[in-house]
Amino acid sequence: MSGSRLDPWVDSYASRAHAMRASEIRALFAVASRPEVVSLAGGMPFVQALPIDMLLETAQRVLRERGAQALQYGSGQGDVTLREQILQVIGEVGVTAHPDDIIVTTGSQMALDLVTRVFCDPGDVVLVESPSYVGALGVFRAYECDVVHVAMDDEGLVPSALDEAIVAVRAAGKRAKLIYTIPNFHNPAGITQGQARRAELLAIAQREGIAILEDDPYGLLGFEGEPPRAIRANDPDGVIYLGSFSKTIASGLRVGWAVAPHGVREKLVLANEAAVLCPSNYAQLTISEYLATQPWREQIKTFQEVYRERRDALLESLQALMPEGTTWTIPAGGFYSWLTLPHGLDATAMLPRAVASLVAYVPGTGFYVDGQGRQNLRLSYCYPEPDRIREGVRRLAGVIESELELAETFGTTHSRGAFTGSSVPAPDLR
Amino acid sequence: MSGSRLDPWVDSYASRAHAMRASEIRALFAVASRPEVVSLAGGMPFVQALPIDMLLETAQRVLRERGAQALQYGSGQGDVTLREQILQVIGEVGVTAHPDDIIVTTGSQMALDLVTRVFCDPGDVVLVESPSYVGALGVFRAYECDVVHVAMDDEGLVPSALDEAIVAVRAAGKRAKLIYTIPNFHNPAGITQGQARRAELLAIAQREGIAILEDDPYGLLGFEGEPPRAIRANDPDGVIYLGSFSKTIASGLRVGWAVAPHGVREKLVLANEAAVLCPSNYAQLTISEYLATQPWREQIKTFQEVYRERRDALLESLQALMPEGTTWTIPAGGFYSWLTLPHGLDATAMLPRAVASLVAYVPGTGFYVDGQGRQNLRLSYCYPEPDRIREGVRRLAGVIESELELAETFGTTHSRGAFTGSSVPAPDLR
Repeated sequence: MSGSRLDPWVDSYASRAHAMRASEIRALFAVASRPEVVSLAGGMPFVQALPIDMLLETAQRVLRERGAQALQYGSGQGDVTLREQILQVIGEVGVTAHPDDIIVTTGSQMALDLVTRVFCDPGDVVLVESPSYVGALGVFRAYECDVVHVAMDDEGLVPSALDEAIVAVRAAGKRAKLIYTIPNFHNPAGITQGQARRAELLAIAQREGIAILEDDPYGLLGFEGEPPRAIRANDPDGVIYLGSFSKTIASGLRVGWAVAPHGVREKLVLANEAAVLCPSNYAQLTISEYLATQPWREQIKTFQEVYRERRDALLESLQALMPEGTTWTIPAGGFYSWLTLPHGLDATAMLPRAVASLVAYVPGTGFYVDGQGRQNLRLSYCYPEPDRIREGVRRLAGVIESELELAETFGTTHSRGAFTGSSVPAPDLR
Repeated sequence: MSGSRLDPWVDSYASRAHAMRASEIRALFAVASRPEVVSLAGGMPFVQALPIDMLLETAQRVLRERGAQALQYGSGQGDVTLREQILQVIGEVGVTAHPDDIIVTTGSQMALDLVTRVFCDPGDVVLVESPSYVGALGVFRAYECDVVHVAMDDEGLVPSALDEAIVAVRAAGKRAKLIYTIPNFHNPAGITQGQARRAELLAIAQREGIAILEDDPYGLLGFEGEPPRAIRANDPDGVIYLGSFSKTIASGLRVGWAVAPHGVREKLVLANEAAVLCPSNYAQLTISEYLATQPWREQIKTFQEVYRERRDALLESLQALMPEGTTWTIPAGGFYSWLTLPHGLDATAMLPRAVASLVAYVPGTGFYVDGQGRQNLRLSYCYPEPDRIREGVRRLAGVIESELELAETFGTTHSRGAFTGSSVPAPDLR
């Protein structure tokens, strides 16, 4: 973004503000939002699958029956009825809690912010997956944390790699404050941690006295069987669990939550009050009324069907069309697959050519703070219709094939600028 | 709040978390919220004066006509149509801007948080009025700022005192980053800065290169004549102006905004994205539709009438009932009057006895970080009906008279614990 040199206030900013930079690919995403481009980049839920009449009826009832409350300031911890209802939602992943353990936040992004605010001084280490959610990396950077990536395999975060990372952090005289993990239908990796793996990771966290920050926006959006049991279900004292209504009801309401151990929750409430006084009663009561009067579990099944069909369209067309040497993960739920390009190709360098061919994705480097991920990209199947997904994959396969020809002719080429998660994500990248 | 000693995570918190403490008077305010208590404590707008049908019609139209947008993620800067409409609102106080200069936030509290995040390192100084808004003090403390109070007189912040404070800050080797001021219908002081005074303060800020943070939630809620011209109207580059729909439409929607110079605004948008990804589209489109289709200027006049009647009820009964030696400010708008007790009385010590007499207020020490304000208290007239206000003042006068008798008999007594703004406010205290 231009103009910073002319900013008369640039010398007045806090140290943390210098870490707030717009990503280099924002301009490109502005182009990618044109209707002729198939965007496999954004993580927007397909809210059109939510019958608008359900929301209309809900909003009317809230305003007619509890208007004075809906329009007023509320509790800094969140509406108590909604917190009781959240117990039912988290019960689906095996989490039991008391309504007092829950704090309602302005989307679970705000919960990420508040947890980091409460735990992390500048220079404190947060251990994250390789790759990790770009929006979380933006928060950790805003609080000047040191982010350390830990390897994943098909079962998720690798325990031996976590052990090694903790040893290395300690040897460097640093302190790891949080292990940040997305165990279900990982963004961007599309991987789900096995239950045995979860137990191993929890044992390490407990042994080392490091809190686990379990981010679970997609847990109820699995495509087969029961929702996976949350890590928090096995340790109420060592895990801070984050959930959201953004993908199961609607992201535009900005309602998420944290379930936290008693002392942490007290700090989170105070931090929430300092940040926003209280979450929106209007949004909270709308969600609460919806949960009380609408068939929300059936609606989640509808969302699962929508996303499963799109996941299948993506995987089938990747299988049919991608050139040899290209691999991808098979998500069992959620919104994303993580693709690895043939050796020698660079997803960041390729992006302008992909957009010129009317298909967009997020380059893998966005999900790392350290320049890893050049050979990777994230494909989202949540928003476009199945036929558009197939067309997008067809275009992408064409781009990759052209890149392979170029590489054979001229040798491998890498982009100069790395796009890393250290820049704040554009909303399209969530 | 109990239990902190048993918190297993207490050694893992960030330095800033140790500054997050619940105020000692929270428990008392839980009692004060009982219906038999006349609360002159809370700053809740009287949202019942907003016809619910106006909101119902608005919400229906939003969901029917723009449902997919209202339920979806949006721009990190806020909806562009709403930003254009905000130009009309701030035009009322003489502020001209471009929609790009505006960032929509989750209430203007979030704007306070983001501005502090962008400007203030730990130890940086924020210059504030004596007294100042408790919610802002909570934010500054959360970012570990040094808050320096500057004297006010009947015209607001005193220029010579501001000069002296800046000299003293510099002599102490510190840097003042922000001058935080509420020029209109001050919370809690009930004072409005004169226009000449605003010019003097602006000249000092410009000369010293310190940004003014102008917080104006009440500017359109004056009781006579035109809304006072904002400081920002005279300096687009040196002032960050904060506004809110909490008092002119409804606080439960949590929609506020900042108008900021170009470079600052860019940082604020990035900070907003890191904190919440984007403000709620549902709330924003509801506000936007309301502004486009409902008589919002007439509704603000209705609010003015409601609050003027209550202000008059407060002032008339104070005049009629308060014992000699008690003084108070005469607000020309907004929600608050600032009362000074007779010499020797202590508002914090008196509060439990007031609550026992079924009347509540906020002790003055809450609006300072340094223990000042023991002789003061804030009276809010925004929420109770006029007859309740009169009854509350009658009860309060009785309590003060009893205190005077006690003081004459036993000498002055002070409370032991100071309640200061360094604790985070309970929502009732906003």
